[in-house]
Amino acid sequence: MPSFTVYKGSHDGSIKKAQTTKPDLRGDDVLIRVTASGLCGTDEHYRNVDMVLGHEGTGVVEATGPDVKYLKKGQRVGWGYEHDSCGHCDQCLSGMETFCPQRAIYGEADLDQGSFASHAVWREAFLFQIPGELTDKEAAPLMCGGATVFNALRMYNIPSTARVGIMGVGGLGHLAIQFASKMGCDVVVLSGTDSKKEEAMKLGAHEFIATKGKSELDLGRKLDALLITASIQPDWKLLLPAMAPNSVIFPLTVSGNDLVVPYMPLILNGTRIQGSIVAPRHLHREMLQFAAQHSIKPMIQEFPMSEDGIAKAMNTLNEGKMRYRGVLVPQ
Amino acid sequence: MPSFTVYKGSHDGSIKKAQTTKPDLRGDDVLIRVTASGLCGTDEHYRNVDMVLGHEGTGVVEATGPDVKYLKKGQRVGWGYEHDSCGHCDQCLSGMETFCPQRAIYGEADLDQGSFASHAVWREAFLFQIPGELTDKEAAPLMCGGATVFNALRMYNIPSTARVGIMGVGGLGHLAIQFASKMGCDVVVLSGTDSKKEEAMKLGAHEFIATKGKSELDLGRKLDALLITASIQPDWKLLLPAMAPNSVIFPLTVSGNDLVVPYMPLILNGTRIQGSIVAPRHLHREMLQFAAQHSIKPMIQEFPMSEDGIAKAMNTLNEGKMRYRGVLVPQ
Repeated sequence: MPSFTVYKGSHDGSIKKAQTTKPDLRGDDVLIRVTASGLCGTDEHYRNVDMVLGHEGTGVVEATGPDVKYLKKGQRVGWGYEHDSCGHCDQCLSGMETFCPQRAIYGEADLDQGSFASHAVWREAFLFQIPGELTDKEAAPLMCGGATVFNALRMYNIPSTARVGIMGVGGLGHLAIQFASKMGCDVVVLSGTDSKKEEAMKLGAHEFIATKGKSELDLGRKLDALLITASIQPDWKLLLPAMAPNSVIFPLTVSGNDLVVPYMPLILNGTRIQGSIVAPRHLHREMLQFAAQHSIKPMIQEFPMSEDGIAKAMNTLNEGKMRYRGVLVPQ
Repeated sequence: MPSFTVYKGSHDGSIKKAQTTKPDLRGDDVLIRVTASGLCGTDEHYRNVDMVLGHEGTGVVEATGPDVKYLKKGQRVGWGYEHDSCGHCDQCLSGMETFCPQRAIYGEADLDQGSFASHAVWREAFLFQIPGELTDKEAAPLMCGGATVFNALRMYNIPSTARVGIMGVGGLGHLAIQFASKMGCDVVVLSGTDSKKEEAMKLGAHEFIATKGKSELDLGRKLDALLITASIQPDWKLLLPAMAPNSVIFPLTVSGNDLVVPYMPLILNGTRIQGSIVAPRHLHREMLQFAAQHSIKPMIQEFPMSEDGIAKAMNTLNEGKMRYRGVLVPQ
């Protein structure tokens, strides 16, 4: 019976070290020794919950269950927001298992383990081999952050000819700039101030607009797609006039508020608001291949995988000081 | 110089008869004698404006300008919400002239004429021949109402296998039921009470749900697409849980309020809110052919084309008593 260290949220927001014991490996279970974990904004949302945190994991296969077919001990793998799905519903059968009604996802299922841990046990079916071009630390933030922005661009067929806006330069935004740019898109970054301009341009942005205090965006050619990756919902009245006819907006921010958007401008411009989450597995694989081929890598800040290290990483993220993705690393 | 009778809105909401004189026919201008006009909810929005009302026109060609190529005197034609576009922009060149930045549309351009009139002069390029299977009175409501609901289903590729919700049984809704049903879709009608159930089922609905007082919709199989044709915005909290993963909502209601939708359910379910207006010309033509082929016809109430007749029709619509589209007919 595998037993390992995990790090949990708690009522007062402090990070608690604990021990999880799982049954002997069954079916296609794989025991993984965690080598790195990204820190995602969603972790913050569960900080006050008694559950193991972390869902951008990478590690090494330590043992495999009786039905494991493709993975072997010693191989490098990663996992993300989704751990399981029914395999039977229309969504599962059409490569959309991220919307399976019985999906097992972070925050809802498997609360006794996560990527803030020494080990984890997951189904082989929901693990991804890490390409040789990426280290474990580089691959970890791709497992949710990378998959989320890649999915918006790829699942919804944003063409290479599109002018793509990326609002917010953070964990998701700095990856979105790279993916969209390497796809050939004309990338416009929207950020509060100019402070991240130089880095955004290096990551592949073609244009950078500081939005603070602006009542109108002077964009020239309008946007065909817009990924909103900022930590709070944007000023929709500012954004809608910047959108081309028939364009699409992906609100990727996690927010407890309602979506409040000017109504008639949306109708008259044929604007589409597209809810979108992480990538289903076939697109997650594509994302890793594409990242490997084009050297798309997160810019990371490392923290030790410990109660203090996790708390420190979360505080850095909260203060808006992370450049651009925190990665927890076992000491 | 053609001179003809028109009916305008006015500050106090009364309908005013007036006279419009246009220059001699130029280019591909066509002079049309109006034989019928539908009454649309949008007309009501301009009732207090000093402009000619009506944008669901049908009539007979009386004279043609020097560059007219396809139409001849005596032919039956119709026109809708859009009268002109630049012919040069990306939208025009991709069959999306409804989103041309220079589009000439009802309420914004050509305020001196409309379909509440004895005649009108429009460009041949924005006129549609009426199939022999449809009378002028039947074709008129298709020019905006029919085109709007057909466009949602057709431009955004709703498949025949979809379960399609139609919310609201009125001018648009009763046409949407027919189009979706004839496309092979599984049509679910959502309406306040049961009062329109029998007619909705006759029009092709497979299921009818009265929503009044419900805090939850018991739908069985969820909706892949939903056309909202009610006169006011719906209760979004009631509707979102009825939508299948990756489904699409078309808010077709004209509303001055913001769109206020629960945010996280939209994201987590991959829901798409798609702004959509009338059909571009190539789809408008398809719509007329499809209607002719499948005997899709509006249920109409006739009113005389006069100050009193128009006022009476508008009041009937306002009181929610129209079954289901008012049509103004010259006496």
